Amino acid sequence: MSWNKVAVVGAGLIKMGELFEQSYEQMAAGAFSAALGSVDKGLDKSAIDAVIVATQRGSLWGQEGIGGNTVPSAIGLSGVACTRVENACPSGSDAFRIGAMVVASGVHDIVLVIGVEKMRDKSTQEGLLARAAAGHPLYNRGETAPVLFAPFATRHMHDFGTTPEMLASVAVKNHHNGCLDPYAHFQSEITVEQVLASPMVCSPLRLLDCCPQTDGAAAILLTSAERAHEFTDKPVYVAGFGVATDHPYLHEKTSFVGLPATTLASGRAYEMAGVGPRDLDMAEVHDCFTITEILDIEDLGFVEKGKGGPASLEGETALDGRIPVNPSGGLLAKGHPIGATGIAQLTECWWQLREEAGERQVAIRQGFALQHNVGGRGSGVSVVNILTRNP
Amino acid sequence: MSWNKVAVVGAGLIKMGELFEQSYEQMAAGAFSAALGSVDKGLDKSAIDAVIVATQRGSLWGQEGIGGNTVPSAIGLSGVACTRVENACPSGSDAFRIGAMVVASGVHDIVLVIGVEKMRDKSTQEGLLARAAAGHPLYNRGETAPVLFAPFATRHMHDFGTTPEMLASVAVKNHHNGCLDPYAHFQSEITVEQVLASPMVCSPLRLLDCCPQTDGAAAILLTSAERAHEFTDKPVYVAGFGVATDHPYLHEKTSFVGLPATTLASGRAYEMAGVGPRDLDMAEVHDCFTITEILDIEDLGFVEKGKGGPASLEGETALDGRIPVNPSGGLLAKGHPIGATGIAQLTECWWQLREEAGERQVAIRQGFALQHNVGGRGSGVSVVNILTRNP
Repeated sequence: MSWNKVAVVGAGLIKMGELFEQSYEQMAAGAFSAALGSVDKGLDKSAIDAVIVATQRGSLWGQEGIGGNTVPSAIGLSGVACTRVENACPSGSDAFRIGAMVVASGVHDIVLVIGVEKMRDKSTQEGLLARAAAGHPLYNRGETAPVLFAPFATRHMHDFGTTPEMLASVAVKNHHNGCLDPYAHFQSEITVEQVLASPMVCSPLRLLDCCPQTDGAAAILLTSAERAHEFTDKPVYVAGFGVATDHPYLHEKTSFVGLPATTLASGRAYEMAGVGPRDLDMAEVHDCFTITEILDIEDLGFVEKGKGGPASLEGETALDGRIPVNPSGGLLAKGHPIGATGIAQLTECWWQLREEAGERQVAIRQGFALQHNVGGRGSGVSVVNILTRNP
Repeated sequence: MSWNKVAVVGAGLIKMGELFEQSYEQMAAGAFSAALGSVDKGLDKSAIDAVIVATQRGSLWGQEGIGGNTVPSAIGLSGVACTRVENACPSGSDAFRIGAMVVASGVHDIVLVIGVEKMRDKSTQEGLLARAAAGHPLYNRGETAPVLFAPFATRHMHDFGTTPEMLASVAVKNHHNGCLDPYAHFQSEITVEQVLASPMVCSPLRLLDCCPQTDGAAAILLTSAERAHEFTDKPVYVAGFGVATDHPYLHEKTSFVGLPATTLASGRAYEMAGVGPRDLDMAEVHDCFTITEILDIEDLGFVEKGKGGPASLEGETALDGRIPVNPSGGLLAKGHPIGATGIAQLTECWWQLREEAGERQVAIRQGFALQHNVGGRGSGVSVVNILTRNP
């Protein structure tokens, strides 16, 4: 029933954080080395015949804007076919989807999908100023990320009685999970009280409702399902994926209690994979803010619309809950190096499905994991990938 | 022998130029409308299930940096799966290659590949300053495009006796062809004397050796070869393609008389298509500077290394020559709106293969056309696509 034409045979990332001491190319090399080293039976890097690089806006933050040109040389693959994919916050997850289709097309055999993002080398002010200069000349003034998501929290509270404690419970859970993930940017427990006492950023979102700005890189190696066993006895397959767009500006929205792109993208991914939300053992979803994870788990069909807050508070999404969400620590604790984020989430799904996630391992019963990002102006694009360990 | 799994069933562009009166989204809408209108038997736009947007560096020039998010809404396709591909100057040609593989993967049926670039809304100084802030902190200082290509002209002259008149003959030919192309930015004849009297930009390259900065957009509609006849009785097929990278910085080059990425990319494309340079009826190649076209026709195998200058001077690449090159006017006269360039070149190949190119129509004998871009830091990436009208 599933697509299962393409397999993940290697995946890895570098420790997320403020990596001032590493260049864009050094981060890429670290992630590539980790992915290559994870291939059970080994993989000669000269066999890689195509690379997809995910970087959201290198040139904005003063770094390399044409990663498709500079990454291959930096990782010892000069000459290889290489393309950069950009799709706002889902850049990494969309690069993975494109990489899977490149393999499925029969043109390339072994494809490296690598995400790299430098977020900390320029000040936030410079980053925001540069961003404000881009896009629509009027509508996107002042459109920082907290400003884009806060109205969803306000309306969700109004319509469904979602509380600040429910939002905080998402942050507490993900920071707890981050403590168990050696790759997470933040690795310390926080409490609901600490979240509620943290400085207000854009009401009702407080500092600990927000993900950090993080440098990072992650990489995945794909090949056809037929060839997977040359490289590992535990391949993970691409079961399905979906991408959807939405009108990009806030004034075009008709609802502030959900993100339609996520609903549409996940519907496409579920259909392609031949599964539904009940078939999933775990998910890595886009928690750029606590409210976003609540919207996500509703829009992805894990809980009914409006029930995301109570479900989070009651532990349904905890490591031992009904549907563990963001065992890696999520964007809130693991970090959100944009181009790398989706690929790092997929690496977590790969570890979980192979039952190699150590202390944060969740129970794998049905063999399916979901990865999700949403982003862009007005959350106008969402990507969902579904992986499976079932052949 | 050819790949021929994917067909072009529609293609179109907008008049290139300084389009201050059109937004990024308006340019995209114009190109989409042209491509849709070109489908012989019509195509309901709701059948398009994926879009690939090529924009090189929107945010650099103060325009939309996340085209995968804003283009679908602007062209009436909100909701559709959409991805932005960036690969320096070959962004458009690589987006086409990715689009072809998306169709070949069996995941998407009808794919729109659309290239859009705003080059003129910001001053050159602002553009260059912004560019100088990106990439390697030392090596790329002062690396404007003429600075990157001038050493190749100097060395080509030294090694092979290439003359300024030979360079000028490329500009004269392409401006002549541009006069016959209603979509070209420049539509006036120039003479060798005018080229040689134009201001020096970076010795030995003069103003008329350089392509202009141009706003533009172009779009192509792809589907599977099996479905092509639903839309047209004159489909054009994707015979093959190739991409190659090279070390990105000038100090890493081992030769200044050719661009290895082009040789490697075209070798891959020829192999995939099962053809060679002698099978081509025409080509659209990357003439960002006159010397670049001379390098291209050597690196693509149209003439021996070192013979590109005399071949250009003697008319081998003219509309009625042995191998017509850049019948559209090329980047020198038609213009170089980066993300749109490759797709506009492919549109020209499509018109030529369908024998719909009017006064600039070349003789189609063997049914193959080649499209080429090279670019990025140190010309570190090249893309070649080969189209055919032979089923």
